[in-house]
Amino acid sequence: MSDRILNSELKNKVMSAEEAAKFVNNGDNVGMSGFTGAGYPKALPAAIAENAKAAHEKGEEFKINVFTGASTGPETDAVLSAAEAINFRTPYNSDKELRSQINKGEAFYSDIHLSHLGQQVQQGFFGDMQVAILECVKINEDGSLVPSSAVGNNVEYAAKADKIILEVNSWQSLDLEGMHDIYAPEELWDRTPIQITKVGNRIGDMYHKIDVSKVVAVVETDSADRNSPFTEPDDISKKIAENFLQFLEDEVAAGRLTYDNYVMQSGVGNVPNAVMSGLLDSKFENITAYTEVIQDGMLDLIDAGKMSMASATSFALSPEAAVRMNEKADFYNKHIILRPQATSNNPEVIRRLGLIATNGLIEADIYGNVNSTNVTGVRVMNGIGGSGDFTRNAYISSFITPSVAKGGAISAIVPFASHIDHTEHDVMVIITEYGYADLRGLAPRQRVEKMISIAHPDYRPQLEEYVEAANKVGGHTPHDLTKAFDFHNRFNETGSMRKA
Amino acid sequence: MSDRILNSELKNKVMSAEEAAKFVNNGDNVGMSGFTGAGYPKALPAAIAENAKAAHEKGEEFKINVFTGASTGPETDAVLSAAEAINFRTPYNSDKELRSQINKGEAFYSDIHLSHLGQQVQQGFFGDMQVAILECVKINEDGSLVPSSAVGNNVEYAAKADKIILEVNSWQSLDLEGMHDIYAPEELWDRTPIQITKVGNRIGDMYHKIDVSKVVAVVETDSADRNSPFTEPDDISKKIAENFLQFLEDEVAAGRLTYDNYVMQSGVGNVPNAVMSGLLDSKFENITAYTEVIQDGMLDLIDAGKMSMASATSFALSPEAAVRMNEKADFYNKHIILRPQATSNNPEVIRRLGLIATNGLIEADIYGNVNSTNVTGVRVMNGIGGSGDFTRNAYISSFITPSVAKGGAISAIVPFASHIDHTEHDVMVIITEYGYADLRGLAPRQRVEKMISIAHPDYRPQLEEYVEAANKVGGHTPHDLTKAFDFHNRFNETGSMRKA
Repeated sequence: MSDRILNSELKNKVMSAEEAAKFVNNGDNVGMSGFTGAGYPKALPAAIAENAKAAHEKGEEFKINVFTGASTGPETDAVLSAAEAINFRTPYNSDKELRSQINKGEAFYSDIHLSHLGQQVQQGFFGDMQVAILECVKINEDGSLVPSSAVGNNVEYAAKADKIILEVNSWQSLDLEGMHDIYAPEELWDRTPIQITKVGNRIGDMYHKIDVSKVVAVVETDSADRNSPFTEPDDISKKIAENFLQFLEDEVAAGRLTYDNYVMQSGVGNVPNAVMSGLLDSKFENITAYTEVIQDGMLDLIDAGKMSMASATSFALSPEAAVRMNEKADFYNKHIILRPQATSNNPEVIRRLGLIATNGLIEADIYGNVNSTNVTGVRVMNGIGGSGDFTRNAYISSFITPSVAKGGAISAIVPFASHIDHTEHDVMVIITEYGYADLRGLAPRQRVEKMISIAHPDYRPQLEEYVEAANKVGGHTPHDLTKAFDFHNRFNETGSMRKA
Repeated sequence: MSDRILNSELKNKVMSAEEAAKFVNNGDNVGMSGFTGAGYPKALPAAIAENAKAAHEKGEEFKINVFTGASTGPETDAVLSAAEAINFRTPYNSDKELRSQINKGEAFYSDIHLSHLGQQVQQGFFGDMQVAILECVKINEDGSLVPSSAVGNNVEYAAKADKIILEVNSWQSLDLEGMHDIYAPEELWDRTPIQITKVGNRIGDMYHKIDVSKVVAVVETDSADRNSPFTEPDDISKKIAENFLQFLEDEVAAGRLTYDNYVMQSGVGNVPNAVMSGLLDSKFENITAYTEVIQDGMLDLIDAGKMSMASATSFALSPEAAVRMNEKADFYNKHIILRPQATSNNPEVIRRLGLIATNGLIEADIYGNVNSTNVTGVRVMNGIGGSGDFTRNAYISSFITPSVAKGGAISAIVPFASHIDHTEHDVMVIITEYGYADLRGLAPRQRVEKMISIAHPDYRPQLEEYVEAANKVGGHTPHDLTKAFDFHNRFNETGSMRKA
């Protein structure tokens, strides 16, 4: 048995994933660890999927409702969806097969702000939770856990669930011990302030204390997180990053930011990594990150002494960066904190810290409404994730995106966003490779010119044509609703938003 | 001179509104007190309007940018807009003439969350602020102010403005002294938690301390707030209130609420007043309100011992209720707190207190997206006000609305909301006279049936027809974008959303 299980009671609960999976029944609400391909259960989902397949072969129903931190890895969403074992999923998904089932209406998906789900589960918005399945690095003598590479909603799920199943993953570095800050707010109606005034404040416990008597099984695993490889930013990403950095410089020039007060929130991906690359050579110092996910670029900034502290709920590191993290764990431990997502994404702390939020998008309309989730309004891509938590409460909210997608067939700037996740009241700055549109303090009509200026030049005439039609209708927010979705309808008909 | 001006330095600054108005120039950013027809300046706007008219007659430009708490009275927005003296207006407006100018594109309007504007002004999102014009009840010996019947953004405007003009309104009751709790957060990047854990906590000062040296004029007025008369709720409002109370009862039955933990936020109007009427005879006790505006129904609840504490930033009382307030000021002073709107609407406090938000709407779509602001997507009605602040951070967010408007020509439930202010991620419960749609924990496809069940029966077949077309397209959020605005287009063409 692994020397990572120190609690004697729980030593007796060690069993195979197959045995443990018997505790999960058809129709159960199952809370799982896992956030952005880190810290998700590696063994139980496959065993549950086998049980589902066996039941289906006998003509019996077997589907569960899966609650996580955010996305997971192939060993969780992919195996369960391949077995058609997922009835309901929340709050975020990036698995291809599951996405397809959701978009066919075969699986139900509720796209919930990441900061909200834990509270909603605890308060019973989804009924009871039968099982929580949590990956951890180690079980201490007192039964408390060293959480894994993601904290997510583990605290709420462990508290709510009738039964707990632990996966002790010896692939995870023991050096994660000490990096977590596990804080649980008081019960609803008796809450006190979350005492974080600086990114680096610790307000909780290194360990996740659980009710050991609820643990029905402990399963040992030795299985890697799904690490996305790092890809060098392309020219478009570099240009977007350049425009973003120009925006920051202009904020400093306008007296709205200083070189040592940039509190970063950043989505994950190529463009954010290009931004962080650019920050390495910038005048910004003492950068801090209050964000969801630690990515490669942040380690680079920490290494360079540019970033002093990063707070998140999860890691999304390339395999190379993960090795680096493990090798210098002592060092990074002083610069990184992993928190529950109810804290990492909490509106209270986000508003207080005065951060600049930067997220991606699918499309934005000429008035600054943003679609982050549904392609042509109907097919969900991944979900809103934490973009709402941060955008809505940031000091400055920004979005970064290439001006076109699918080789130019899709414009990121459209007349009317076909799904709206971030409203004109929340979106301040939008940045493409053509510059940035600063929408702050502007009436809708005043925003149009700025939005068209960052659209791809090929789409500007079409956008201007729409504006002309909209202005004939008039109003505070001019629209011609008979033409508002022409871009999308053309795409659906011809495969391109471009006019022939 | 009024005995309400006790500071000797400021006594010397007393002058007529006409003299004071000379401090306001073309192009100025002017911050004013005032929130929902209470506490707005009564004399300066007319004098500024006269200067604007005189300038316009000479062919000169004269327009100002008007920042307030929320809406104001006729003596502010109406006189200024009649003189075509408003270039830009934020964050909320309910004046008919100004609305018309905004919808014609003659005045610019930026519809900003009420909790956000103060911070945005302070941080310079709108540049400098040349003048703040603040109504108060009294000036103390030390120059501090007893604020008026609304606090709004007075703290931020007084701090930001180069010059301050005070209106001392002797119509306002001296009994307002002691009702205010004036708190200003620390500077950005050095903020600490807002220490409100219960609705009744006081964390600031009774008085508004200003920089006396910035005061350039003091003007005496004796002029009433615009009080909306109270109208008895009609049958539809009573039925909606009944359904709302049933929803609360069902929450208690489900273990998600207790009879003594209802923290109320409520929009203003007939339906909310009907709800409060209903609460008088309910099992709920120790109700508290953390809201924007104190309205008649809340006084009734306080009188009945049902409501223990109400926190807001302004009053919206009928003339009769205002008299009652003044007569029992000592009593109400123990049960009412008026705060700056940056505190009354703060996401930090709202999330912590676990409140149930209840606001009106223009339309909601079959997936639960809500339009609160723009009729047929283009003509602004009033604005988002605080509905976003509360909806986005509430424990439970709810909307109450009659199922139809304009004698049935407009359905409140539509296929696709023509403007989206509250997204499907934020809207939990929608209530009409036909029942309530509880959308929590549901995928978009699962919400449709619930939404149609609360639509007016006349519109249900049309909605079902749309759903059929949308389902042919499919997706996570099925829509047929060629038909999504058919309800609105029909209304624009025929004056009714109804099919012939």
